Amino acid sequence: MADTAVIAGVGPGLGESLARKFVAEGCRVGLFARSADYLEELAADLGDDALAVPTDVTDPERVEAGFEEVRDAYGPVDILVNHASGGAWSGLRDISPEEFERAWRVSAYGALLCSQTAIEDMLDDDGGDGGDGGTIIFTGATSAVRGRGGAIGFSAAKFAVRGMAESMARELGPLGIHVAHVVIDGQIEPPRVRESQPDRDGDEFLDPDAIADSYWQLVEQDRSAWTLELDVRPHVEEF
Amino acid sequence: MADTAVIAGVGPGLGESLARKFVAEGCRVGLFARSADYLEELAADLGDDALAVPTDVTDPERVEAGFEEVRDAYGPVDILVNHASGGAWSGLRDISPEEFERAWRVSAYGALLCSQTAIEDMLDDDGGDGGDGGTIIFTGATSAVRGRGGAIGFSAAKFAVRGMAESMARELGPLGIHVAHVVIDGQIEPPRVRESQPDRDGDEFLDPDAIADSYWQLVEQDRSAWTLELDVRPHVEEF
Amino acid sequence: MADTAVIAGVGPGLGESLARKFVAEGCRVGLFARSADYLEELAADLGDDALAVPTDVTDPERVEAGFEEVRDAYGPVDILVNHASGGAWSGLRDISPEEFERAWRVSAYGALLCSQTAIEDMLDDDGGDGGDGGTIIFTGATSAVRGRGGAIGFSAAKFAVRGMAESMARELGPLGIHVAHVVIDGQIEPPRVRESQPDRDGDEFLDPDAIADSYWQLVEQDRSAWTLELDVRPHVEEF
Amino acid sequence: MADTAVIAGVGPGLGESLARKFVAEGCRVGLFARSADYLEELAADLGDDALAVPTDVTDPERVEAGFEEVRDAYGPVDILVNHASGGAWSGLRDISPEEFERAWRVSAYGALLCSQTAIEDMLDDDGGDGGDGGTIIFTGATSAVRGRGGAIGFSAAKFAVRGMAESMARELGPLGIHVAHVVIDGQIEPPRVRESQPDRDGDEFLDPDAIADSYWQLVEQDRSAWTLELDVRPHVEEF
Repeated sequence: MADTAVIAGVGPGLGESLARKFVAEGCRVGLFARSADYLEELAADLGDDALAVPTDVTDPERVEAGFEEVRDAYGPVDILVNHASGGAWSGLRDISPEEFERAWRVSAYGALLCSQTAIEDMLDDDGGDGGDGGTIIFTGATSAVRGRGGAIGFSAAKFAVRGMAESMARELGPLGIHVAHVVIDGQIEPPRVRESQPDRDGDEFLDPDAIADSYWQLVEQDRSAWTLELDVRPHVEEF
Repeated sequence: MADTAVIAGVGPGLGESLARKFVAEGCRVGLFARSADYLEELAADLGDDALAVPTDVTDPERVEAGFEEVRDAYGPVDILVNHASGGAWSGLRDISPEEFERAWRVSAYGALLCSQTAIEDMLDDDGGDGGDGGTIIFTGATSAVRGRGGAIGFSAAKFAVRGMAESMARELGPLGIHVAHVVIDGQIEPPRVRESQPDRDGDEFLDPDAIADSYWQLVEQDRSAWTLELDVRPHVEEF
Repeated sequence: MADTAVIAGVGPGLGESLARKFVAEGCRVGLFARSADYLEELAADLGDDALAVPTDVTDPERVEAGFEEVRDAYGPVDILVNHASGGAWSGLRDISPEEFERAWRVSAYGALLCSQTAIEDMLDDDGGDGGDGGTIIFTGATSAVRGRGGAIGFSAAKFAVRGMAESMARELGPLGIHVAHVVIDGQIEPPRVRESQPDRDGDEFLDPDAIADSYWQLVEQDRSAWTLELDVRPHVEEF
Repeated sequence: MADTAVIAGVGPGLGESLARKFVAEGCRVGLFARSADYLEELAADLGDDALAVPTDVTDPERVEAGFEEVRDAYGPVDILVNHASGGAWSGLRDISPEEFERAWRVSAYGALLCSQTAIEDMLDDDGGDGGDGGTIIFTGATSAVRGRGGAIGFSAAKFAVRGMAESMARELGPLGIHVAHVVIDGQIEPPRVRESQPDRDGDEFLDPDAIADSYWQLVEQDRSAWTLELDVRPHVEEF
């Protein structure tokens, strides 16, 4: 039977590439994001194997309802990608406490809610290792391993997410759930953008379809050799 | 003139040792914590150079008022220690979203509020490097660099704090503010506890007075060789 | 045309799994190791796509001759796996300087020699990016990121290798050569060993075939999203 | 009684500042370096508490003899600073194997020889914790934590040293020996150079006297709160 996946935080870019890749690999995918219009369009393009679920991942009730909708359509969730992210590109001198909180709430708190709901389908009824297991992948950034000057909200949120991923990997690995964290180092640009500007070579950008391939490999890994963390960057990136 | 310090999150243990050390080195210290009783007792013991300021560091107005109280008594703040920390010793399966949020709010959000208020005294009026500078130290933990299984709230909060510290160091170092993060690896036990149990050697615990010495060295460092991060652990600690 | 690979340091375990995987994916593989007997046997088993090249990777002339042999048989080298490793499981108090040196020489110095020879085939004649590019993968260990007590020779050697890999990734990535470092966390045990002991579940071991899958994914990655480092461990591993 | 220190790799810059600081704090210091002339001059300037010991730290017999000379003059060694370092500022394409080896031999192999000789004075006769203990500090660099493109020899050597330090800290901490690693991030410039060029502010350089203060603090730390690693950089450094 096909795997069921939830991608939380879908937009044009990596989220969309993940959805396309997972469907191409035979998954049925629930797409979570706040903007209904974009989701509907993407889901329509993907056909029967994708479901648009307009959801605010920071709202516990909406998250619960969103997962129910996916389960009703496709069955228990096997794969979760915590991909939602909040900006907050200011330093300590300029950020408002609200903006700082928002970055954390979308990235970390939302991922907690989605993960807690998803593991209900991956563990047995007692929260033990008798379930079918699953995969939970977090989208990280360089600012998750190296706090960026002038981006305190983003850095704090992305560090928090990495700490969650490591904690969850230690807790849930022995229970059959593969938790992984992908450090994306650089700017993502879809090939279609590049193709529209034939004068640029685009080497300095990450192709989201290529990143999606690495996410899928994480899903496919045998549990005797699971990866907790990998980084991806363009071959010309200075780092 | 004596330096003015704020220690946010004072309790018996490292917070108290920091207060005693800073006063011994000639500072005048504002003590922030939620519990008034303990603070009053400690301040009385420390004399004229310490001020008890019962404060909830997660409340912007209380933080602002607390700093005002310290400034009125001792003048502009030169040193801030972000030492408040929220527990959250559960894994993904058991933690409530409220507990997860609380850990972040005390550790990270509170540190943001205190830091934003403190730098007003350290920078010039335009937020530039024409001020007197200062020192901001964060208390970290092993769970800030290595997410702990079964402690997702604590890990996410401590990672967030480390990301903040790194971001602030990059933003504020050139402006004359030394930002540092201390990774405390192990259990802290005050010597007085140890002395009451003469049968134990206590080697497995960190002496908070010894840690306070390292915090003070960070304050004293020349700005041509500032430390962003150091770790401390008992000599017998396995790590 | 098929890719040509060199695996330096082949033995029963991960080296053999890499050879089998690369041949299965269409590569022709040069097998380097000191022991001729084992290599001949493995090469015979793999058929026309594998060449046994008994080689001491710490001897510049032998390395040069070994690559020549592979080039003569299969053409220019596209992929190199620096997999040779020297033990040195003693602490400072017990290790001899010779043992300390040996660990470094096999792991780091040998990898330098092989890498310098391999990139001749991957760059253009001026050492620039006009060549066909290629992939160089280093086998690392947990002791490459966390110095192990009682294993100073192994830790120093594995750290050195990781430093080389990072340096090479920064130098060679823009020239079209993908350099990656795999942190293997745990004990490897081939499935055939496991199968001979049906009473054990073997969950605590890494399956080398599963690790080889991840190496192959590194070879396959699009250069817009190259991975420098990933870790692999059994799902039950405590870390 | 005064502590006896050995500083291996003394030159004008940090080595000299360490010697001056340690003597000022009451130590008697053996100065190891290859160049006799400079050592004699420095020792003469420091008086009875410093001994010039021209030594090649990569030669086991010379190291043994050097320590004997220091012991004869000042008694058993309490403090060792492994400060010798070999350059190797080339990338994979340009470095010779000899240059790569030289960097490792001076930095890592020499530190092994010095450390093995020094701990004879710090442990009891059985290599146990019944001795007086001591302190061993390694001078590291940013290239010890982040492999630098175009400096493969230096990166591999500095990574190796960091791996050694971590391994030794875990082995020797419980035996009463404090092992620490200092990551120096930036260029060092002695104040006397700066003073000769009054037009420059010199903010971009590390003052070696300021770094020496942090080394001394490591020596002074109470063993209930030892630091394994700290970094130092100028306040204006971009990192």
